[in-house]
Amino acid sequence: MRIALHQGPAQPADAEANLDVLAATARSAADGGARLLVFPEMFLTGYNIGPDAVRRLAEPADGPSAQQVARIAQETGIAVLYGYPELVGDAVYNAAQLVERDGRRLTNYRKTHLFGELDTAAFSPGAGGFVTVQVDDLRVGVLICYDVEFPEAVRALALAGADLVAVPTALMAPYDAVAQTLVPARAIENQVFVAYANHSGQERELTYTGLSCVIGSDGGELVRAGRDAALVFADLDPERHAAARSELTYLQDRRPELYGSLLSPQEVRP
Amino acid sequence: MRIALHQGPAQPADAEANLDVLAATARSAADGGARLLVFPEMFLTGYNIGPDAVRRLAEPADGPSAQQVARIAQETGIAVLYGYPELVGDAVYNAAQLVERDGRRLTNYRKTHLFGELDTAAFSPGAGGFVTVQVDDLRVGVLICYDVEFPEAVRALALAGADLVAVPTALMAPYDAVAQTLVPARAIENQVFVAYANHSGQERELTYTGLSCVIGSDGGELVRAGRDAALVFADLDPERHAAARSELTYLQDRRPELYGSLLSPQEVRP
Repeated sequence: MRIALHQGPAQPADAEANLDVLAATARSAADGGARLLVFPEMFLTGYNIGPDAVRRLAEPADGPSAQQVARIAQETGIAVLYGYPELVGDAVYNAAQLVERDGRRLTNYRKTHLFGELDTAAFSPGAGGFVTVQVDDLRVGVLICYDVEFPEAVRALALAGADLVAVPTALMAPYDAVAQTLVPARAIENQVFVAYANHSGQERELTYTGLSCVIGSDGGELVRAGRDAALVFADLDPERHAAARSELTYLQDRRPELYGSLLSPQEVRP
Repeated sequence: MRIALHQGPAQPADAEANLDVLAATARSAADGGARLLVFPEMFLTGYNIGPDAVRRLAEPADGPSAQQVARIAQETGIAVLYGYPELVGDAVYNAAQLVERDGRRLTNYRKTHLFGELDTAAFSPGAGGFVTVQVDDLRVGVLICYDVEFPEAVRALALAGADLVAVPTALMAPYDAVAQTLVPARAIENQVFVAYANHSGQERELTYTGLSCVIGSDGGELVRAGRDAALVFADLDPERHAAARSELTYLQDRRPELYGSLLSPQEVRP
């Protein structure tokens, strides 16, 4: 399966402009043969737009923007994963929705690990449930940005059968090591593909790192963007995936009976 | 605190020769100002010597070799962590023991994640209990080789208060990515120092990768050996450690109530 990542800035608080970019990019990615296209975290509105704008622009998972994404997916014949602010009653979540190429909403994920003030001022935390959905021959799980930095989250998806973990993100300086070390580690330790789609450029005080990537389930770097806006492609090879799964047996060699302390309430030494 | 890693081959099935190297290296490391010296996995006997030799050379944790290591630690004034085959009744464990500079045995760890035939043919698996012990101002936890590739094991030590995770290892080709990606990831995601001491050279059919390293709790590479035998040093800076702990808050931002599936018995999709 060929997948594509869109790396680039979002127009702050301008969903219409960002949906235009989403439509044009979906066309380009489909022309390039991609089956799935991943956009950054909160791409619909921009990420660092402040809690008031986030709340004003938040929509239900089946709201008007979702319906427009569904039309784009149908017209271009490509599945689309995009980040957006989700409104549920009074709550706003930092969400990412995967829309199939026939327009069905396959899964909607709410960020469970919130990143400092930037997130906590604007969003309620997701309640988990690390689930996977089928896209052709692959099971796909979704995380958002800071989530992937927690090995527990990716492990939960791998145990739920994920072949591919797709991660809309908004990684800023000085955290290059997340893109260059933690994301590849997640692929290696779980034998999953990881697709990590980041913003680029500046958004208020944040400088995004770019460095979007697709890492193979054997740890190989299938594609790596630079610092600037880019549309990049990677082919997920089923034979190489099967070989990685048979050569590295971390998932079978775990000792879950010894991991009880990982579920204890936080008691972190200062 | 300054620590040292000994990277090098062990003389196969020759504990006396390896204890001579251990003594000479302890002297050099102490002369270099190190407070703690880490040797590779199964350094006392060699790692890839076959199950029969492993069993023949296995000793209790307080056996004659342990007593000799205690004397070396006392004479040189340096704490020593070394790998050896531990005999407990009929069982043999792949163990690592940390001996304080006053000769006390501080902790004895038994490898919990066994690596394929090489381990399972020779060793019983350890029963876990990821504990930490105090060495001056640092809490130290011990893992062995394959253990550190499991994020759960390092997380358990971090939650038990570890500042430093010390890892005797026997990493062979083609697994460079473990030393270069997974080990740094463990440091970053837990804000712990990781000291990873490997064999070098050839041992039967295995070619060891070298690449021993000490990674800072902020992810910085404090020292990295090459492919050949080496004694390397690193200074663990308490101020930089405190800064890493306050800047990166993974341990506080976890959502343990959502990680239940990590404790389920293995149900790995083929």
